Amino acid sequence: MTTTNQILQNEKYQSCIDACFDCAESCEYCTTCCLREQDVKMLTRCIQLNRDCATICVTAAAFMSRDSEYAKQICNLCADICEACAQECEKHTNMDHCQKCAQACRRCADECRRMSG
Amino acid sequence: MTTTNQILQNEKYQSCIDACFDCAESCEYCTTCCLREQDVKMLTRCIQLNRDCATICVTAAAFMSRDSEYAKQICNLCADICEACAQECEKHTNMDHCQKCAQACRRCADECRRMSG
Amino acid sequence: MTTTNQILQNEKYQSCIDACFDCAESCEYCTTCCLREQDVKMLTRCIQLNRDCATICVTAAAFMSRDSEYAKQICNLCADICEACAQECEKHTNMDHCQKCAQACRRCADECRRMSG
Amino acid sequence: MTTTNQILQNEKYQSCIDACFDCAESCEYCTTCCLREQDVKMLTRCIQLNRDCATICVTAAAFMSRDSEYAKQICNLCADICEACAQECEKHTNMDHCQKCAQACRRCADECRRMSG
Repeated sequence: MTTTNQILQNEKYQSCIDACFDCAESCEYCTTCCLREQDVKMLTRCIQLNRDCATICVTAAAFMSRDSEYAKQICNLCADICEACAQECEKHTNMDHCQKCAQACRRCADECRRMSG
Repeated sequence: MTTTNQILQNEKYQSCIDACFDCAESCEYCTTCCLREQDVKMLTRCIQLNRDCATICVTAAAFMSRDSEYAKQICNLCADICEACAQECEKHTNMDHCQKCAQACRRCADECRRMSG
Repeated sequence: MTTTNQILQNEKYQSCIDACFDCAESCEYCTTCCLREQDVKMLTRCIQLNRDCATICVTAAAFMSRDSEYAKQICNLCADICEACAQECEKHTNMDHCQKCAQACRRCADECRRMSG
Repeated sequence: MTTTNQILQNEKYQSCIDACFDCAESCEYCTTCCLREQDVKMLTRCIQLNRDCATICVTAAAFMSRDSEYAKQICNLCADICEACAQECEKHTNMDHCQKCAQACRRCADECRRMSG
């Protein structure tokens, strides 16, 4: 039988899981949009960080969803990568996809930092 | 520059991406809850299908998020696995986590079937 | 106790699992190398297919490793994507990373086709 | 053009990438074998750690394969989880799959610790 505690466990994670999935989606989409820009060459670090950010966000969401012993540790690393990705995306002020991605990364970094704290 | 078409592209996928992430979370959580039940042995096929369903849902969400050429194909397979997982979870009428997981799987199967059609 | 049958089960998959992991690594690495080329713009479809191929190969390897009911179906889709990725990489005859990636994709496509048959 | 440096970069990671993929496969397979044991209930922590270990190993392999800025950090966390999983699997001395999984986890922990150092 699922105990109330287990239900609450998952609710405790919900806003962070949502932020991780949203950030993963934004990073996958931002990568595709960057590849469609004329000057891809200036966006290669953005793409590299988007790749890592998408991967770690999905991993962190999986750890929280399964109530892993290591949820805090993965969220701590996820926050670091989200911050680096946000910082890079914020440089591209004329690109909607980078601006939206930066917002998703900032939100995810905050949620993951709180979770890991 | 991101074209309106690219923005719409992503919006076209949004409800299916949301359903995939929600289903992935539900399957990861259902697996954990199944492992905490007294009679795990009767839940092993449920756990096996949850594992596959969580994996394929995250993969399908990634393909759609990046506007992949293969979005339709992965959604078609995702729909099959979600239906099998829902069918198995629905058998465990006395377990909240299985009932909630079945609902998430049914919704995801419908969204993925529509997307692949 | 693990039965001989279960041990053999995994051995049946081993060469295909190896090919999937090798292909996933090659596609991740090829993407990075493509981003480091001067003319990235001509490599964007190669990068897009590398992303899908890396994702599906890891997913197929997971399904086989866990002896999934859906191993054949995921291998069938994996073979399709590996072939498309190989075809695209083969166009870039002057790039070592694309040539090596194409070889890994062809090998993985053959293994997955055999497995799904 | 791929520089020799980039080729060496990947070679630097190769033995760790191999260990991560081998460990991911072993953990996925060990989970399935645990679910087939009569007394699954005594193996639930083993299964939970196998799930995390399989996920983090594939993530670490992806980061290294793409020559990520965060390869060291992910390998450091991967080593921690591999050690915990090995420790748990080693308890089940009468189960071949756990003994083999523990060996794969120990090897991966060593490779990841060296990489992150």
